[in-house]
Order: sequence, then C-alpha cells, then structure tokens
Amino acid sequence: MRAARYTGPKSIETADVTAVKPGPGEVQLAVAYTGICGTDLHIYHGDMDARVRRPAVIGHECSATIAAIGEGVAGWSVGDSVTVLPVHSCGSCAACQAGFGHVCPQLVFLGIDAAGAMQNRWNVPAQLLVRLPSGVDLRHAALVEPTAVAVHDVRRANLQPGQHVVVVGGGPVGTLIAVVARAAGADVSLVEVDHERRSLAAKLGFRVLDPTVSDVTAAIVELTSSRGADVAFEVSGSAGGVTTAVDVLGVRGKLVMVAIHTQPREVNLHRFFWRELEMVGARLYERRDFEEAAALIASGVVPAEELISAVVPLDAASDAFASLSSGGVMKVLVDCTEAAEGSNDA
Amino acid sequence: MRAARYTGPKSIETADVTAVKPGPGEVQLAVAYTGICGTDLHIYHGDMDARVRRPAVIGHECSATIAAIGEGVAGWSVGDSVTVLPVHSCGSCAACQAGFGHVCPQLVFLGIDAAGAMQNRWNVPAQLLVRLPSGVDLRHAALVEPTAVAVHDVRRANLQPGQHVVVVGGGPVGTLIAVVARAAGADVSLVEVDHERRSLAAKLGFRVLDPTVSDVTAAIVELTSSRGADVAFEVSGSAGGVTTAVDVLGVRGKLVMVAIHTQPREVNLHRFFWRELEMVGARLYERRDFEEAAALIASGVVPAEELISAVVPLDAASDAFASLSSGGVMKVLVDCTEAAEGSNDA
Repeated sequence: MRAARYTGPKSIETADVTAVKPGPGEVQLAVAYTGICGTDLHIYHGDMDARVRRPAVIGHECSATIAAIGEGVAGWSVGDSVTVLPVHSCGSCAACQAGFGHVCPQLVFLGIDAAGAMQNRWNVPAQLLVRLPSGVDLRHAALVEPTAVAVHDVRRANLQPGQHVVVVGGGPVGTLIAVVARAAGADVSLVEVDHERRSLAAKLGFRVLDPTVSDVTAAIVELTSSRGADVAFEVSGSAGGVTTAVDVLGVRGKLVMVAIHTQPREVNLHRFFWRELEMVGARLYERRDFEEAAALIASGVVPAEELISAVVPLDAASDAFASLSSGGVMKVLVDCTEAAEGSNDA
Repeated sequence: MRAARYTGPKSIETADVTAVKPGPGEVQLAVAYTGICGTDLHIYHGDMDARVRRPAVIGHECSATIAAIGEGVAGWSVGDSVTVLPVHSCGSCAACQAGFGHVCPQLVFLGIDAAGAMQNRWNVPAQLLVRLPSGVDLRHAALVEPTAVAVHDVRRANLQPGQHVVVVGGGPVGTLIAVVARAAGADVSLVEVDHERRSLAAKLGFRVLDPTVSDVTAAIVELTSSRGADVAFEVSGSAGGVTTAVDVLGVRGKLVMVAIHTQPREVNLHRFFWRELEMVGARLYERRDFEEAAALIASGVVPAEELISAVVPLDAASDAFASLSSGGVMKVLVDCTEAAEGSNDA
C-alpha cells in the first residue's frame, strides 16, 4: 500500500509501505479522504520537529470504511463508514477524571504523535471510531473533524439564538464556526483579510468585513445599535485579531480563543474589567462534538462542497502541501482510496 | 459642617461648607466613617483629573445614620444605620436592561462623578441606601463596600467548596477576596510582595507566598498534587501578577480579573487554548453583593478590626492621604462624625 510521509522540512514523500493486520481492539480502515489541516502545514514546515518522529504518516481529518476487524472488537462490521476521533487520552489524570480527556496532558494525537490517516490503510483503536450517518458522501465526511472543532468552539461560547457573533479569521475553521453559529441561531459577521476567503464567506451568506479597509469595531457598534457583539471567536492567530475580538464585544461579551498564539499577546485587560468580559479557551473536541458535526455534515447544514477547494491523489500529496503553503484556498483533500487493482499486502 | 475636598494633585483640604436639605427622593446622612480606597488615592495623585470636577468631596466607602428624610421617601426613619451603594445607573441602556446596571456606560459614581462621603452630612438618593444589620459596629460597616467588591469577585468565579484558590495581591480587596473565598469553602493561597501584608494574611490564617523568593507556580502545583489551581484572582495590577495568575491555573481553571490594568498586558493565550482556561472581568458590585457583604461584616466572618489600620479625624484627612501613599497599611478610615456640639447648618 501507499502512504504519504513527512520526512523533514518541506518534504512529503509518498512511498510503498507494508500494511499490518489490526491488533487486538483495533480495526483496519480503508481510508477514503484525508483533509490537510493547518497543523499538518506546521508539521510540513518543520515547526513541530521536536514532537514528530520521522518518517511520519500525518493527517487526522479523514473518512473511511472498515476493511478488517481485530480481535475483541464488537459492534463494528467490515464496510461500515466511519471517521476517527484522533485523540487518545490517558484516562487517569485529573483532566480525564474530570471528564475533560480532550485536554489531557498526556494526550496522544493520531497524525502527530502516532501514525495518521494519509495512507491507504490505517489501523486505529476501535474506541476512537465515530459512525457516519448512512448515505453521507465520504468526501464531505472528511470535514467532520474540522466541523467538530467548530461545534466545540460554539459549545464553549454557550451561544444563544439571536446573539451577534463576530468571527475573526475566515479560514476553514473560522468559516465552519460561522456556519455552526448561524445554525445555532446567531447573526454572524466574519472578519477576514484575504479576498478569496471573504468572497467565499459572502457566497455562503455571511456579512463580511475587511479589516484592512474598514473600522470593524465601528461597524459592529452600528450593526448592534451600540450594544456590541455578544460573542467573538478569535481564529486568526494574529495580534490584530486579538485586539479586534476584544474591541467588538459589548458588556459581558465572550471571547472564544480558538487560534494557537505561540507568543504572548498584548490584551486590553482594562476592557475585560470595565465591561466584565469573558474569555474562554477552546481546544479540539469531545466525542459529542464529533457526533453533532457528523449530523451537520449529513444534513447539508455544512456546505461541504463549497469548502472543498481540491481533491488530490495520494501520490500528489507533496504538491498539495507546497501549493497550500502559498495560501488562498480552503480545504484540500487527499484521495487515499486504493487503486482499483487493490492490494494484497494486508 | 466640615468636608474634606480634593482640590488638585496631592491636595486635600478640610473646609467648612454649608449643608443643604435633602431634596425629593433623597435622605441626608450623618456620615459615621469613610474608608480611603485605592481609587481615592488615584484621585489624590491627580490621575483622574479629567473626570473629577474640583473641589470634589470624594469617598465612597461609608457607614452612616439617617439624619433627615426628603419628600417622597418611604421605608426609612431618622436614626437608621445604613451604607450606600455608590453607583447610579441610567436604567435604560442595554446593560441596564439586561440587569447589569453596575457596568452601565453612563454610570454616575458617587465620590468620583458626584459628591462623596468624606463630610459630616451627605445627601444621597434613597434608592441607593443599603440597610445595615442591627447592632453592627459602624467602624466595621465602613468595610461593607470593599467587602461587596470581594463578594462580587467571588460570585463571578462561581466558586465551589473545596476548590483551590490563588489570590494574587494582598491589599484590602485581595485580602477580602481571600476571606470571602474561604467562607465559601475554598482552600486559599495568597501571593503578596509586601512583608506587612503577608504577615497580616498569615495572621488571618491564610497560606502566604512571597513571589520574590519562591516559585509560586511550583508551590501551587505541589499543593494541588499537580492539578493546578481552580481559580485565580488577579488583584495586583502588575504585569507579573497577570503571568502568575495564568500560570497557576489547572485545566479549565478560571482567572478573575479584578485589578485595573491601565495598559495592555502580555497574556499567554496559548495556555488559555491548551488548558481551556477562562478569564472573567469583575467590576464593582450589585445590590445583592452589598447585602451579602453587610451580613458577612455583621456576622464577624470579615475580620474588620484586623483590617482597619487607623481611624483619623476628618480634619486630618490630608495627612491620611499623604501617609497612605507611602504604602504598607491596609484600610484607613476617616471619622466623619460631627463634633459633639452638633451643627445647626442643615
């Protein structure tokens, strides 16, 4: 079988590897599609070399069908359509015991700390499988994972119908947050510097704001009759995005910190005091977020077709990473289905 | 009657002024004691000259008895012991309509935006009166206002019994937060650089940490068996205090931002993301906080006697401000009771 592997900065090689049978408690997946995520790009650029053991099969946004079932696995059949909750928590630390396994300090993330989905066949613990609703398009289902991020972020906001939401950053996750927030009844404004991403968001029906040409805070003040936004999602990862996300909030507004800021940022703490704002960090997802995301994909609430910029063959994964690094596109999927002639190496 | 008035940077003058009868809806208070607050010190240093119209009778932490009652005031009698909720909200803005009048953008703060309590007689709207429990010592009752701040801060934390709390900053408000949090069942550690304040906190039974000689985060990690603190209150107003308050928190820990940071601070937003932390701003108080604070003072939960560093006569207010500016003390009260011979100028 074939697997795309990260071998070092800016190097992805698709190579022949030997598939192995699923071990006890595992299933072997015939991977269908694997999305390329921002984290995968960080790995590609060498930013996570301290954590990623090379050569590494990366990828954690996938759809698949079950190809084989290991010993002791019940409740699953060959051919079932699934996706994978790619996080393996320790189960015994304080975070896990409190029910927050997704932020377990010993978390093993499949596709970063262990082999990922960018290969024809992938063995995963059966306990991490998430069943897909019947009939769902497997291309669309590769978006369940990023949609689960958005569902988790919106859950952390405790969003109420009718609230005004500002999403700062209109990449795949920001756009999915906008979609999920709108489905929850919010009035959504999306702030994005990139023209193509703004165009897509506008096409999806969102109010879009370009912070390079307009005063976003003034616009939100006007839109909300001076009340300010109820919730802001900071998804841009930029210093300016943090400032915008704080400034647009009204009294007791809530900022959901989704982006990964690798350096400390200046924050207007006086505003937090003065308006009694809140900020909540949001990381990854829980199983219920995956299940809700799968339902949102299956029902068509998530405009999956519009969000998929391209589907590339597994052997062209390297080119896909190179072109994604130049920006401007949304979600690129790697087609991990095996060639029609099949493979007997499992 | 006499009134202490701020006349310009580092200048407080106690002068004879003419008392006026309470207007419709007002009562005239015979002020007993008025505490000097950090905000009063900011005014004294000229930091709030853009907001304070001089000469200004300042002071907003008081105990009093009712001396006279204006037209249309029901439910109050001459001689009743009271304190004053010193905030007057507009009642019609979005914040007020949502029940958050204490953060109303048009808030009028008595003692800053209008005449305050540092005088013998003070006319206030009857709707701002808060009844004191019978028998409460009026010296102690001057601490109801800062205690209400602490009650509000703890309410914002949604504190649960058994949680580990770190209070960063052991001035009057920080110490009162520690007291209120302990009364709510928390295990409290207090971080303070000043030796005298640490000594007082230790005498009150709190675990104290000196950040200049010990690694506060390591100490909290050890104290909590690596879980980290559940709640941190940042009351220091310093950049280092913000860092400490973020660093000590465990997974899903909550930072309550109490201090007024007049400049943006660097915040480790990655930690907010990684541990799904929360931050909530806390400002002033609501009426229910005042009522709870009055009960905590009356019941002796608040060690008022230990927190009162000195009581000075109204005519010595200027000296009190000068000595407070040199630090090291806790709460100084100004005795605003009239001389025994009384006054006929009302």
